[in-house]
Amino acid sequence: MRIGILTSGGDCPGLNAVIRGAVLKGTEINGQEFVGFRDGWRGVVNADIMELTRHNIRGIAKQGGTILGTSRTNPFEGENGGPENIAANMERHGIDAIMAIGGEGTLAAAKRLTDAGLKIVGVPKTVDNDLDATDYTFGFDTAVQIATDAMDRLRTTGESHSRCMVAEVMGRHVGWIALHSGMAAGAHAILIPEQKTSVEQMCEWVQSAYDRGRAPLVVVAEGFMPDSMDDPHSERGLDAFGRPRLGGIGERIAPLIESITGIETRATTLGHIQRGGVPSAYDRVLATRLGMAASDIIGDGAWGQMVALKGTEIVTVGFAEALGKLKTVPQHRYDEAALLFG
Amino acid sequence: MRIGILTSGGDCPGLNAVIRGAVLKGTEINGQEFVGFRDGWRGVVNADIMELTRHNIRGIAKQGGTILGTSRTNPFEGENGGPENIAANMERHGIDAIMAIGGEGTLAAAKRLTDAGLKIVGVPKTVDNDLDATDYTFGFDTAVQIATDAMDRLRTTGESHSRCMVAEVMGRHVGWIALHSGMAAGAHAILIPEQKTSVEQMCEWVQSAYDRGRAPLVVVAEGFMPDSMDDPHSERGLDAFGRPRLGGIGERIAPLIESITGIETRATTLGHIQRGGVPSAYDRVLATRLGMAASDIIGDGAWGQMVALKGTEIVTVGFAEALGKLKTVPQHRYDEAALLFG
Amino acid sequence: MRIGILTSGGDCPGLNAVIRGAVLKGTEINGQEFVGFRDGWRGVVNADIMELTRHNIRGIAKQGGTILGTSRTNPFEGENGGPENIAANMERHGIDAIMAIGGEGTLAAAKRLTDAGLKIVGVPKTVDNDLDATDYTFGFDTAVQIATDAMDRLRTTGESHSRCMVAEVMGRHVGWIALHSGMAAGAHAILIPEQKTSVEQMCEWVQSAYDRGRAPLVVVAEGFMPDSMDDPHSERGLDAFGRPRLGGIGERIAPLIESITGIETRATTLGHIQRGGVPSAYDRVLATRLGMAASDIIGDGAWGQMVALKGTEIVTVGFAEALGKLKTVPQHRYDEAALLFG
Amino acid sequence: MRIGILTSGGDCPGLNAVIRGAVLKGTEINGQEFVGFRDGWRGVVNADIMELTRHNIRGIAKQGGTILGTSRTNPFEGENGGPENIAANMERHGIDAIMAIGGEGTLAAAKRLTDAGLKIVGVPKTVDNDLDATDYTFGFDTAVQIATDAMDRLRTTGESHSRCMVAEVMGRHVGWIALHSGMAAGAHAILIPEQKTSVEQMCEWVQSAYDRGRAPLVVVAEGFMPDSMDDPHSERGLDAFGRPRLGGIGERIAPLIESITGIETRATTLGHIQRGGVPSAYDRVLATRLGMAASDIIGDGAWGQMVALKGTEIVTVGFAEALGKLKTVPQHRYDEAALLFG
Repeated sequence: MRIGILTSGGDCPGLNAVIRGAVLKGTEINGQEFVGFRDGWRGVVNADIMELTRHNIRGIAKQGGTILGTSRTNPFEGENGGPENIAANMERHGIDAIMAIGGEGTLAAAKRLTDAGLKIVGVPKTVDNDLDATDYTFGFDTAVQIATDAMDRLRTTGESHSRCMVAEVMGRHVGWIALHSGMAAGAHAILIPEQKTSVEQMCEWVQSAYDRGRAPLVVVAEGFMPDSMDDPHSERGLDAFGRPRLGGIGERIAPLIESITGIETRATTLGHIQRGGVPSAYDRVLATRLGMAASDIIGDGAWGQMVALKGTEIVTVGFAEALGKLKTVPQHRYDEAALLFG
Repeated sequence: MRIGILTSGGDCPGLNAVIRGAVLKGTEINGQEFVGFRDGWRGVVNADIMELTRHNIRGIAKQGGTILGTSRTNPFEGENGGPENIAANMERHGIDAIMAIGGEGTLAAAKRLTDAGLKIVGVPKTVDNDLDATDYTFGFDTAVQIATDAMDRLRTTGESHSRCMVAEVMGRHVGWIALHSGMAAGAHAILIPEQKTSVEQMCEWVQSAYDRGRAPLVVVAEGFMPDSMDDPHSERGLDAFGRPRLGGIGERIAPLIESITGIETRATTLGHIQRGGVPSAYDRVLATRLGMAASDIIGDGAWGQMVALKGTEIVTVGFAEALGKLKTVPQHRYDEAALLFG
Repeated sequence: MRIGILTSGGDCPGLNAVIRGAVLKGTEINGQEFVGFRDGWRGVVNADIMELTRHNIRGIAKQGGTILGTSRTNPFEGENGGPENIAANMERHGIDAIMAIGGEGTLAAAKRLTDAGLKIVGVPKTVDNDLDATDYTFGFDTAVQIATDAMDRLRTTGESHSRCMVAEVMGRHVGWIALHSGMAAGAHAILIPEQKTSVEQMCEWVQSAYDRGRAPLVVVAEGFMPDSMDDPHSERGLDAFGRPRLGGIGERIAPLIESITGIETRATTLGHIQRGGVPSAYDRVLATRLGMAASDIIGDGAWGQMVALKGTEIVTVGFAEALGKLKTVPQHRYDEAALLFG
Repeated sequence: MRIGILTSGGDCPGLNAVIRGAVLKGTEINGQEFVGFRDGWRGVVNADIMELTRHNIRGIAKQGGTILGTSRTNPFEGENGGPENIAANMERHGIDAIMAIGGEGTLAAAKRLTDAGLKIVGVPKTVDNDLDATDYTFGFDTAVQIATDAMDRLRTTGESHSRCMVAEVMGRHVGWIALHSGMAAGAHAILIPEQKTSVEQMCEWVQSAYDRGRAPLVVVAEGFMPDSMDDPHSERGLDAFGRPRLGGIGERIAPLIESITGIETRATTLGHIQRGGVPSAYDRVLATRLGMAASDIIGDGAWGQMVALKGTEIVTVGFAEALGKLKTVPQHRYDEAALLFG
C-alpha cells in the first residue's frame, strides 16, 4: 500500500515527528510505502510529490515546521481540484490512500473527499488545542512553553520598572494557550475569547496586583474582545491583501490599562515565535505516536477516521464527530486560573 | 481550618507549584489557613513549622525544589515519631489536617497515619512517573525535557566522532523517562527495567544504526539490568555510608558495547540535573491544579485520599488503591519506541 | 566607607550581578558598606534607601531585572533634585559615595554631579552595546541570544510556508543586536541605523534568497529607516502620554516587502522579552567583574571614572571620554554579515 | 584557488559556523573553492574528500558538531602519512591549501607540515579556552552556558535536601570553564588545575556555606587534583583500550567532603553534553568571523599563521607563537571568583 502524507494549514511543532512516526510504523510493520505531497492540498491537486523513505526522515523529529511544506490551498478549488482530479492524480502516481495532517479546515475537506470515495485518514493539528475530540494536540505544549518562557522574562523587566506587562499569545477562538501559560507564569489577569471580561474588571485586577507590590502581568489571547469594546480587529481593518490583520488586541488594551489605572503599561505580541522551532519532548512523543497510529488505521482501512489522544492512549474518532465541536476552556478551568488574579 | 503541608522524599520540579495552588485555593475559596512542615516528616515529628501565606508563596511556582525542604525521615521512627506524638504536635500547633506531597513511601506512611485516625490527604510525587493511579505526575515532563535536551546535544558530538553515546537517565523501577526522552531524541536503543534486553540484542541495535551511518544513541534507565549480566549495582557496592551506590549502569554497558562492536562508546550519566531547576510549563500547570484540588478534598474531609490526573481532569483516589500498583511501561508503548531502534 | 548603589534607565540582564560583585568585593576586601537607592535617581533624590548586605544579595546574580528598581528620573529636576540636595541626603544617611549603574543619560548626570563635587563612579549599562568606551556591555549577550533563539524559531515556520519573516530587534541608534543575532541566525538581510539600505536593495536580498529556495529572514533594528522612506516613527506619532511610540519598523517594512516581491511576509517584534529574564553566563560573569572593579575604583577614589571591558580585562575610563562617542557598527563588520545576504 | 578544510580533535560547538564563514567569504569575495576532508587528518591522509559549496553549508551554523567529522589521526603516522604523501594527495585532487581547524595537537601538526612546505593556515579550536594566543575560542561560551544551566538546576535540588552538590566540568589543564560557570552560578568552591587547593580548604568552604544556610555548590575541573591527594586519575587507571579514563575527580571528592564535613554530598559529571548541540549566538558569531578571516589569510598566502580574537577584532598569529603557551587562569581572576566562596 502506498500512502501520500500532507501537512496543511498553519505549521505547528511536531509535524515532522508525525511524519517520522507514520513512515517508521508503516514501513517497518505495516508494509506501507510513503510519499509526501508538497505544500498541503496544493501538492495533492498538482501532484507535487516527494519520496518519503526511512532515510530521508532521519533526524526530523526535532525539527520545527514541516519538511513537506504547507499551504492553505482548498482542494476543491481550481481547475485541478475536486475529488475526481485528486483520485486521478492518486491513481496516476500509484497512491492508495492519503494521511491528512491538519486542522479544522483540512479535516473538513478530508471529510468531503472521503464522502466522495477517497481513502483518507486524519491527524489533528491545531496549535491552539481547540479540537474537542482529543485531549491535547501536538504543538500546543511547545507553544505554551515558549509563551511561559517569554512571560518569565517579561516579569523581571516589569518588576524593575513597576510596569504592567501585557503579553498577547495565540488563540483565535479559544484561550488554552493563554490559560496554561498564564497559570504557569503567574498572570494577574488572563483574557480569553470564552470570557467576556470587562475593561473595568481587567483594570481592577491590574490595580489590585499593583497595590500588593507586584508588576501586573496580563495575558491576552489574540481572539479576546472586552465586552465594553468594539471588535478590536475591525479597527485594524484589512491589510494590503484584503486579509484581516492578525493580533493587535494586546497593543490595544495596554494604553487602556495605562490611561485608566495610571500604571505604565507595555504590550508584547509573541506572534510567530510560538509556532516555530524545536518541539518540546512532550510534543515529539505525542506526534510520533499519532503518526504511528495513523499508519495503523490506514492498515485497518478506517477511512474517514482520525487519531486522537484520550488519557494516555491513542484512539480513533470519526471526522464527523471530530468536526462537531470547538474545545473551549470550561468555566472551572478558568476559575482555577482566576485564583491567581488581582 | 488550619492545614500543614509537607514535601517528602526526593525533590521534583513542581513541588512549589503544588504549594502555591493549595494555598491560593485554600485561602481564597476554602477558608483554610496553611503552615509548612520543614523537611518532610522530620518537620511533622519535630513540629518544625513555618507560616505559609499568600505573600510568602509569591513567585515560587517557577522555582525548582521545594521551599519547605525535604527529607527521607520515617514518621514512625524516633522518640517523637508515631501517630500519637504527631497528633499531639498537631493539636499543640492548632493544625487540623496534613497535606502530604510525596511518593510511594510518603503515601504509605500517610495511609498508616490515616488508619490511626489522623486527617491526611495526599498529592502524588514521583519524577519517575511510576504511580499507576495517575496518568502523569508533575516533574516527569521536566525530567523528560532535560534528558531530551541533553540527548540532542550528545547526538551531535556522537556524530562528529562516529561514536556510540550512552545516556543514563533516572528510572529505578520503571522506564518512563527513558522511553519518552529516547523516543523524543530518536534513540537507537532504549533499555528499561521492564524489558530484559540481552547484551547481544543491545549490541545488534547499536551495530545496525552504525552500519546505516548513524552515531548510535543508547538510552538506559538507571534501574535496567541486562539479562546476561549480574546485578550491575552489586559490584558498585555500598558507599562510605552503607547506601547502595546510585547509577552506574551506563558506565558499565559502554565498555561492553565498545568491546563487542568495536565502536568507540562514551557514557554520560545525567544524574541530578534531571530533577532540579525551573519546572516546565506543563508541570507548573499540573502541579498547581493538583494543589488546588488537594485543598478542595481537605474541605470535603476526604481523609486517606489523594488527587490524581485522569485525562484532562483531576480526580480523587484512595491511598490503598494508589499504593497497589507500580505503573510500568506497557509492551505496546515499548514496541512503539522500538521502531526507532537499530 | 558607605556606598549607595543605583540602577537607572531601562533594565538589562546582569544588573543584579553587578550589585552582587560590588557588595562582595566591597564588604569582603575593600572595607565598604552598601545601601541601594530605590528606582534609580528617584531614590537618590528622595532618599529612598534599602540596606545591601551579603545576605540580601544571595542568589540574585541569575535574576533578571534589578532588585533596586529603576526609573528615568532626572536627578537635576524637581524640588529635591540637584547636587546640593543630593549631597545633603547623602550626608544625612551617611553615604560617602555613589555607584551609578546606567547608560548614556545616567552617566551624563553622574558627570555633572561629579563636576559639582559629588563622589560618583559609574558602571556602563546599555543593552544595545552602543558605548564606545567598552568592548561589550552586560545584557547585550543575553539580548542577542534571545533574539537568535527567536529567529531560529521563525525560520522553521517561514520555511514551512515559504514566507519571508521579518524580526524587529532592539537598537535605537546602533545595530549591534541586529548584526550579531542576524549573523548567528543566518539572516538574508540585516537592516541597521548605520546603513541607509534602500527598499529596493532590501527586496533584492529577499528575492534572491527566495529564488535559492530559502525562506528569507530579515532582521531589522528598531531604529532603522530605509533611505527612501519617511521616518517610520513619525507616522506612529506619540502615545497617550506624549512619548514617541516604540518599534513599528518591522511591521511597516513587511507589507512593503510583500507588495514589491509578492512573497508572503510576516513581521514579529521581539520587544521586551529581549531585556528580561535570566542573564546568560557571559553576562553574569562580565557584570560581576564590573561590579567588583567598581568597588575597587571607589576604594581608589577614582571619582568621575567608570569601569569598562577591554579585551579580557576590566579597565577604567573617565566619564568625559566614555560619553564622547556612540559605538556604531563599523563598515567591515557589516560587510562580513552581508556575505550571508541575498 | 582550491582549499581543503579539516576539523580535528574533540568536537566543539561552532565548528560548522567556521566552515560556513570560510566558504561564504572564500566563494563570494576571495575567489576560492572549497572541499572538506572527512574526519580530520584521516581524510587528508586518505584523500577522503567532499565538496563544500554554498548550497551544502546552508543552515549549518546552528548545528553542533562538525559536518566534516573529526578524528585524532596523526598525519605523520601510517603508510599514507607524512608531508610527501599529503602533498601528493593535494596535487592529485587539485587542492592548493589547507585550512586546519583544531587544537594544540592539530596546530602542532600543521606547523610541522608547513615547515615541510605545505600551505596551511589554522583556526584555533579548544573548548577549554586554553590557548594563550587568542582572547577566547569558540565553543567555550556554549560550554560555560550549558554548565551554568546545569548548576542552576543542581542548586535547587541541593537546597531542597540541604546537600552539597559537586559538579565536574571540562578542563584538563586549565580551569576556565569551571571559573566562568562557577562565577555565573555562584559556586561556593571552584577547584581548578592551576590552584592546588587542599582538601581541608575545600571542606572549610563547604562548611562555611552550609553554616550560612546555603546548599554548597562545588565546581571542579576534570583536571584538578587536591594537593593532599594522589593523582585521582591514576587510580581509575586505563580503560579496556589502554586509554586513561576520563573524569572521575567529582565522584572522588564528593565522598571525601561527606566524610569530613558530615554534609550529604552528591556528584554530577556533566561530561559530553558540554560540547554538543546548538552553539550559543556568541560562538556562532565568533566562529563565523574566524572562518571568514581564515579565508582572507589564505588569500594573503599567510601560511603558518592562524586567526585569533583580540578584543573585538580578528588578528593573525604565527603557529610558533600560538603553540608556545597554555592560557591558564591568572591569580587575580581566581581571586575574584574566590570572593563567592565559603
